[in-house]
Amino acid sequence: MKKEWETLINEIRKGSVYALAQLITKVENRDQGWLETMQIIYPETGKASVIGITGSPGAGKSTLTDRLTHKLLEKGLSVGIIAIDPTSPFSGGAILGDRLRMKGVSNTEGVFVRSMATRGALGGLSLAARDVVKIMDAFGKEIILIETVGVGQDEVEVIKTADLTIVVCMPGTGDGIQAIKAGIMEIADIFVVNKSDQEGADRLVYDIQSMLDIATGKFSKTIPIVKTVATTGEGVEELVTKLFQGLESNKNEIARQEARVKEEILSLLEKEVARRIRVKWSQSGDIDSLVKQVFDRKRDPYSIVQEIVLSELR
Amino acid sequence: MKKEWETLINEIRKGSVYALAQLITKVENRDQGWLETMQIIYPETGKASVIGITGSPGAGKSTLTDRLTHKLLEKGLSVGIIAIDPTSPFSGGAILGDRLRMKGVSNTEGVFVRSMATRGALGGLSLAARDVVKIMDAFGKEIILIETVGVGQDEVEVIKTADLTIVVCMPGTGDGIQAIKAGIMEIADIFVVNKSDQEGADRLVYDIQSMLDIATGKFSKTIPIVKTVATTGEGVEELVTKLFQGLESNKNEIARQEARVKEEILSLLEKEVARRIRVKWSQSGDIDSLVKQVFDRKRDPYSIVQEIVLSELR
Repeated sequence: MKKEWETLINEIRKGSVYALAQLITKVENRDQGWLETMQIIYPETGKASVIGITGSPGAGKSTLTDRLTHKLLEKGLSVGIIAIDPTSPFSGGAILGDRLRMKGVSNTEGVFVRSMATRGALGGLSLAARDVVKIMDAFGKEIILIETVGVGQDEVEVIKTADLTIVVCMPGTGDGIQAIKAGIMEIADIFVVNKSDQEGADRLVYDIQSMLDIATGKFSKTIPIVKTVATTGEGVEELVTKLFQGLESNKNEIARQEARVKEEILSLLEKEVARRIRVKWSQSGDIDSLVKQVFDRKRDPYSIVQEIVLSELR
Repeated sequence: MKKEWETLINEIRKGSVYALAQLITKVENRDQGWLETMQIIYPETGKASVIGITGSPGAGKSTLTDRLTHKLLEKGLSVGIIAIDPTSPFSGGAILGDRLRMKGVSNTEGVFVRSMATRGALGGLSLAARDVVKIMDAFGKEIILIETVGVGQDEVEVIKTADLTIVVCMPGTGDGIQAIKAGIMEIADIFVVNKSDQEGADRLVYDIQSMLDIATGKFSKTIPIVKTVATTGEGVEELVTKLFQGLESNKNEIARQEARVKEEILSLLEKEVARRIRVKWSQSGDIDSLVKQVFDRKRDPYSIVQEIVLSELR
């Protein structure tokens, strides 16, 4: 355990946001000592409520996150924001874009904003996001908002790690029907119809409600639909109320929380075993002759892999 | 080995595109017998040239792919297209969108189009795409085009499996500079400046060339920049010429091809070992007490995972 890590952990305990940012970066980069650090802070975690905010691009998630954050701050809560970005290799600037979008709150006392790209997260985005959640949690953040545009499997996995998930829709995009189609309903604890001053808002509420009714057999609990206008702040107070009610009721779902812990262990496990086996075999001299045989079509990669797996696993 | 698979393989050998589509679906779904099937067809692969086409959304990749396909057909070549789609859970219709976009060629004799979503590919997108490439290859497709919007790590991995990669840019989007920033240059064998009848095309060519010149030390070969107008077909003939030259020269790069085979083996290996360990531990009775301990903050998931890994790996 290097002194550098110890210093950072101490600084974090004293409330240094600078140390917080540094520690997150070092854990993200898997710097030597990250594992021991996570083990040290783990007992200090589990206090924060983690809220996922997802929805179509353009539905107003960032503005809503901004408004929600201000409301939570007003209530004396300390807030951390993780903004997940589907970074394209063609627009490396998305992270910066995020910071700009978030500028409404990022300089506000009591808020810590962290952007994460979907690309390049070592060990996978959902595990990396879990690490950041834990570090913010240990730091003392009471509410951690994870905002994601909801594109791709990685992001859905991230959302599944939240205690409660808000799905943001807007009128006129057929979101209602699409959301159900794609299995979003299973992860939604609260639906928000944002831009509800626009035409079609009531229709969208009706559509979502109808589909929730149809699915009633599948879901035991009531899923609220809240109408908001994030730009003016309308409906955000009601959202906060539903949010706390939802968190309270989800807290009693021990099975759901245990399932999440199990999933975390299994994810960590498969990533770690995959990492070790890759490191070992990419450096192994044995692989070169196997590559040669596959290249010459004398053998196929599938049977080789089965053999290696059998030789590696107990 | 079930009779169903044998029948499909036989049908494919006779040239049935219907059987081809079915076999791909079954392999994608990892239906029992997929592994043996891939082992059987493996010796029949390795003949096709695989071309990656990537670039910013809106750069005209689909139209270009369409034009390129027609040119290749004119030359008597059989073409397969894999269209990769970053499907959002909010717009499950992207696959359909793709089919529509591709309608220019999808009904044409000698072309087989397959859409793949970035979500839900069992075992990872790049492995799934590799499977589809192999099946199309064994089927007799001489050129396989993989079109992807280039968002996300998964897609970059897919592109890395191609024999040659075309990066499509368009004027007025700052693509030139962004592309370099994000390390796209390392995967580009040919740059296409599409919509080259628009303002700023020459400037973009100049920018790309400048950056290629700067990077000369790093890259030994010349990377051509081709100006096209996909909507009219302008420049596509030149692109085809550069394409064949590029394929020819890449074919001699044995090291590059061997590195790709090695990467394929390692990817398959880590996915398979991760899959087996997850199946074993998710069904294991031992995990429940571990989950309980982590949930109660008596233990942390990180040290548990290290212990399991040590007990599982030889």
